[in-house]
Amino acid sequence: MEIITPHGDTHPGSEPAGARDGYVHGYGAREAERLTTQADVLAALVHGDREGIGGPITGRVLEAGCGTGAQTGHLLATPGIRVDAVDLSTASLARARGRHAAATAEGRVRWHRADVTDLPFPDAAFDHVFGCFVLEHLAEPGRALAEWLRVLRPGGGLTVVEGDHDSTLLHPDGAAGRAVIAGQARAQERAGGDAFIGRRLAPLVRGAGFREVVVEPRTVCADRARPDLRTGFVLGTFVPVFEAARGDVLAEGMVDAAEWERGIADLRRTATGDGTFHYTFFRATARAPR
Amino acid sequence: MEIITPHGDTHPGSEPAGARDGYVHGYGAREAERLTTQADVLAALVHGDREGIGGPITGRVLEAGCGTGAQTGHLLATPGIRVDAVDLSTASLARARGRHAAATAEGRVRWHRADVTDLPFPDAAFDHVFGCFVLEHLAEPGRALAEWLRVLRPGGGLTVVEGDHDSTLLHPDGAAGRAVIAGQARAQERAGGDAFIGRRLAPLVRGAGFREVVVEPRTVCADRARPDLRTGFVLGTFVPVFEAARGDVLAEGMVDAAEWERGIADLRRTATGDGTFHYTFFRATARAPR
Repeated sequence: MEIITPHGDTHPGSEPAGARDGYVHGYGAREAERLTTQADVLAALVHGDREGIGGPITGRVLEAGCGTGAQTGHLLATPGIRVDAVDLSTASLARARGRHAAATAEGRVRWHRADVTDLPFPDAAFDHVFGCFVLEHLAEPGRALAEWLRVLRPGGGLTVVEGDHDSTLLHPDGAAGRAVIAGQARAQERAGGDAFIGRRLAPLVRGAGFREVVVEPRTVCADRARPDLRTGFVLGTFVPVFEAARGDVLAEGMVDAAEWERGIADLRRTATGDGTFHYTFFRATARAPR
Repeated sequence: MEIITPHGDTHPGSEPAGARDGYVHGYGAREAERLTTQADVLAALVHGDREGIGGPITGRVLEAGCGTGAQTGHLLATPGIRVDAVDLSTASLARARGRHAAATAEGRVRWHRADVTDLPFPDAAFDHVFGCFVLEHLAEPGRALAEWLRVLRPGGGLTVVEGDHDSTLLHPDGAAGRAVIAGQARAQERAGGDAFIGRRLAPLVRGAGFREVVVEPRTVCADRARPDLRTGFVLGTFVPVFEAARGDVLAEGMVDAAEWERGIADLRRTATGDGTFHYTFFRATARAPR
């Protein structure tokens, strides 16, 4: 167990071996900015209107796969919450700690470099486990969920949010745009992940032993009436995922450079004029057995 | 203008020329049953939780494309509502009238055989226009919306609900299942419709001159926790659409008979065990300019 303290004993650049391969989106500054934009734009979708176990996430909370702390800020907005945030990337943890320096100094959040499938915490240590866009990158998401269940107290809560690339609806439609999305999904699969995990969240969570499993679709609908979502999500979050994955997508051989350019143009076009863009995230909430 | 009275002056079998070709799902008794199951299962999605112009649909209401009256019953559940229900199919109207005999006798609903793009009503005659799964079958949905705007009073409300076949997420995934869906969409397109209309509802409604356009995704999530949706929607509504379209789908030449069988099995499999099924409808609400 390695706690990243507020005093700077981190080692930027000391990524775990294979980390770049394991996280298809990469670890650059531009990616960190994308994650922040994404977290802010999606805050209402990720955190709002809980139909499942209800109420805000509170108590002692494990954030599994905190990355650069984009979602951590939304968790910390709840008074009295205490967060243990875990990630594999030391560089991401350093960014996260810098961004949440005050909460770190106050002891409201602690940063841990660890594997989310092999946690340095005792059984039943947490009231809630939160994981956002993490399971999609894991070769064994079910094993991670079982580990998260282990560290939850009886009756403790789970919130996981994941996307499903097949839920993307482009208007105007574009074959090249769909090919770029399919290529990125293939690259993610090669790295051990699953860009289509959203649809199987319910059986995954249930299969890991959770109870009261509720999966809610949370759809981004960006059109002329929502310029904030066009800018913040389509152009500021979604398209950059694919721009960042250009090399990996081309390496898959499903699209060539020219089609890749047309595909990015297809995606961008949905955020102009009478275009529309839809993408559905799935939020699962559940409880550990009592 | 032809009003179908409660006294039986209808002419079953006198479908307008080309009606069978124009309505890809056909007009059989089994289809009528499917539409009823669909309407009941989807009632909460179609009618519940209005985020847009809000409140229940009330006043003098035009139901554009009432079919066999499956949705009409849900409209009539609102006290004080008066419905003028329009459809091209005399046989469907006769079924609808039979089903809603009491409301018909009370004068709460009147049945009209007419084209939803050329309505036998004066300008500004209605407080609200409701259309469910109708625009998807029209070659010129924008023209229909303009006609609906014409018969709405200033500030009157619009509610339209449509699906988008590309929103279907199957788990386990199945290439044959997706091919069957794509084949049905192709057949619908050949008949002048658009099975992917959901994503472009916002620009269509706005383009017709409506204001305060809000489009809400309404997703059916059917998994082990929702046996009612598995039975009522996946097996009772969705699969039958494709079973009914078998001849048309095979005629498109995209799948052969063997793949069609495998495809139907793929769709059914999502309603068993750890399978999951998702489909998103889009509900648009809007107002006529004041």
